[in-house]
Amino acid sequence: MLRIKIIAMGRLTEKPYIEMASEFAKRISKSYRLEIAEPKPVKLSDKPSPAEISNALAKEAEFIKEEIPARSHVIAMCVEGKTMSSEKLSSYLSDVSVSGTGQICFIIGSSYGLDESIKSASDLKLSVSPMTFPHELFRIMLLEQIYRAGEIASGGRYHK
Amino acid sequence: MLRIKIIAMGRLTEKPYIEMASEFAKRISKSYRLEIAEPKPVKLSDKPSPAEISNALAKEAEFIKEEIPARSHVIAMCVEGKTMSSEKLSSYLSDVSVSGTGQICFIIGSSYGLDESIKSASDLKLSVSPMTFPHELFRIMLLEQIYRAGEIASGGRYHK
Repeated sequence: MLRIKIIAMGRLTEKPYIEMASEFAKRISKSYRLEIAEPKPVKLSDKPSPAEISNALAKEAEFIKEEIPARSHVIAMCVEGKTMSSEKLSSYLSDVSVSGTGQICFIIGSSYGLDESIKSASDLKLSVSPMTFPHELFRIMLLEQIYRAGEIASGGRYHK
Repeated sequence: MLRIKIIAMGRLTEKPYIEMASEFAKRISKSYRLEIAEPKPVKLSDKPSPAEISNALAKEAEFIKEEIPARSHVIAMCVEGKTMSSEKLSSYLSDVSVSGTGQICFIIGSSYGLDESIKSASDLKLSVSPMTFPHELFRIMLLEQIYRAGEIASGGRYHK
């Protein structure tokens, strides 16, 4: 079973998001072995300067790198990444799975995104939408796509 | 204040989605006068034929047309539509607002999407993502983008 780790900066705090994340995690467990790590984002001032943001992203990149399992296929979520359909994501995950890696790692940044060092070291930069979503909602969207990918791969009726 | 009506096929049924939709609707009310209509989708058999789906979409299109307010600027949500950033959506809504229409209508289809007659009669076909999302989650995503659009237009701190 393909192992999927999501490294997401910051915890879910709002109850509906927590409930939905837990529901999708349960459903995903039929298809993938899911693990979630939530490094703590660096606290920023109210109106952070570009330098402050850039320092925070560099610090967060260190936390993220510590969480990336060895020999993972790394997918950095970023707005400027490649877009693909749910079917394509499903076959992409299957391809990685048979290629012998056996471990995929999705990375979701904090509200200012991801440090360039994370993006450039990733195997794939993936974009869900050119629109900006809050990180808690985005987590649910990604979990749903991972669940859907498993359902597509197994020929389930969830995806029409 | 710009009036926004969302016509979405089907009700929200899961509690976390209902809670989040209600939260975003409350926040949106600072920027837009929001109304939501939920026509009942046509019930389909377990494995609907293309003809059955096409008939259902045509029937649903009738329900939708009844709900579209006169002189609305109509935005049909569909996977093959135009993509835009959150900033662009915000300025798009502002432009429609000053153009004198004063009423925007977003249309979200059922699980098989929207009838061609709805898409071709719309002013804009808008895509959030090439990925497929369940309609309940998609509703939350659209509500969040509408809230974000209002925050961007008013220079609020929500959108960074």
